[in-house]
Amino acid sequence: MRERELITKITALLHISNEDAFIFPYNNILFSLTVDTLVAKTDVPKGMTPFQIGWKTVVMNLSDLAAMGSTPKYFLLSLTLPREYPVLDITKGAKSACTRYHCKYCGGDLNEGELSASGFALGTSKTVMLRSGANPHDKVGITGDIGRVYSGLRNLETATQPMKEKIFTPRPRIAEGLMLKANSCIDISDGLSSELHHIATASNVQIDIYSDKIPIHEDVTKKAHSLGENPITWALKSGEEYELLFTSPYINPKIGTEIGEVKKGKGVFLDGEPMPLLGWEHYT
Amino acid sequence: MRERELITKITALLHISNEDAFIFPYNNILFSLTVDTLVAKTDVPKGMTPFQIGWKTVVMNLSDLAAMGSTPKYFLLSLTLPREYPVLDITKGAKSACTRYHCKYCGGDLNEGELSASGFALGTSKTVMLRSGANPHDKVGITGDIGRVYSGLRNLETATQPMKEKIFTPRPRIAEGLMLKANSCIDISDGLSSELHHIATASNVQIDIYSDKIPIHEDVTKKAHSLGENPITWALKSGEEYELLFTSPYINPKIGTEIGEVKKGKGVFLDGEPMPLLGWEHYT
Repeated sequence: MRERELITKITALLHISNEDAFIFPYNNILFSLTVDTLVAKTDVPKGMTPFQIGWKTVVMNLSDLAAMGSTPKYFLLSLTLPREYPVLDITKGAKSACTRYHCKYCGGDLNEGELSASGFALGTSKTVMLRSGANPHDKVGITGDIGRVYSGLRNLETATQPMKEKIFTPRPRIAEGLMLKANSCIDISDGLSSELHHIATASNVQIDIYSDKIPIHEDVTKKAHSLGENPITWALKSGEEYELLFTSPYINPKIGTEIGEVKKGKGVFLDGEPMPLLGWEHYT
Repeated sequence: MRERELITKITALLHISNEDAFIFPYNNILFSLTVDTLVAKTDVPKGMTPFQIGWKTVVMNLSDLAAMGSTPKYFLLSLTLPREYPVLDITKGAKSACTRYHCKYCGGDLNEGELSASGFALGTSKTVMLRSGANPHDKVGITGDIGRVYSGLRNLETATQPMKEKIFTPRPRIAEGLMLKANSCIDISDGLSSELHHIATASNVQIDIYSDKIPIHEDVTKKAHSLGENPITWALKSGEEYELLFTSPYINPKIGTEIGEVKKGKGVFLDGEPMPLLGWEHYT
């Protein structure tokens, strides 16, 4: 069974919706909870330091909170590590990311085994932004640029500095998430194509994307062309970008780039043609 | 470096205390957060089903909340699993335990790798019970009985039904934790000896334990004697018991058994002799 099918079955079993974080109200406050695990085999590129592993684990979780428009408050880290692994360096990296994003790193757990790092974050929200909130007539926006992660990982030896930065020290879009006030939002962890399909399905809408509007770094375009490949395809499947993809009647250019629009209907279209479902998936 | 040294360094780096859960106030409510990871190599005895793995992961976390006197509210589960592992059975086990203890299982994460399950639980508290709150003149109490886990794991083939129950479907002492109103409390995950030392050190007190008062199941006593070993030693080092160890001026016999007392001084004593530090530790 593939990951998407499994997640569909699990969410049905639990009667929950598949969102970046779980939101619950308590005494008139909205809290958001999320968990995300970094696994050596799939999430740790060659050359990533223990400090960067700690940093990235925090970012993976805070990015989920950013997609819900939440302010991060508390973070916990459960580490499973082989013997003699430099655990304090991971902890320092996690602490550094927490400090940078004003979140308290308040504890965790330590176990022996194959490297993995499970982060848990709690945030507070003033509004609720879901994957399922996209409305026809919304525009589609995206923060930053995409493609640098896939491009860099295609061959780390020829990766440029901007590619390495996004792979080894990613940034969660906390400030943007708080400013957005979007109808729907998701963070790009599996890839733009995959996340667009998530929003279209969850919101029961059609999404039209225009390839010439997708913000792609010039280094990515150059590298794709040098290999005779299409930078748009790279941008669509590049995962762990931690940019926010959102829909709103108006896209503030200070927050993101408008790349398309939401319509009545179903499916995701790129320049008028059905967009293939690309991007990272476990168990494929 | 051994686990205790590592945890000391990590808690110093983060300026946090080493408690079962992290407690924070928000709008006059006390919230408690905890994380605990089940790892295949160390936490999954031979014969444990995927359903039981899910159940146990929930119990490990709710037991931490119980030790803080908290009411469990929300649970998240991050699973890392090999291909073709019956993930839905783990999820069903976790859901069953959450339902049993009135906690909402509200989401999680799925990854590919060596089996591990990271649980994260959030609870609310009306009081604060810490490891560091033991006072001279407190009595020492313990819920239930201890030793069945170690005794069963010594040889699963000769384990009796009461031993198997505690190993495969442990129970968190939520109700007891709420009734306790103790000065200090900890749950027994590493072993009675280890947890007694934690309380004595954190509270800067001496603890005297009387071996004839320790509640040990008759099956454990029988098995230890049949192997020519001391059941008290088994009880002191038996981990993953999920009983509560607490100190209070009065031990209500409906909640637990009185096994000793707190005094001014340092260290842990068993029948007047220094108690060895036994119990589970990673990286030893």
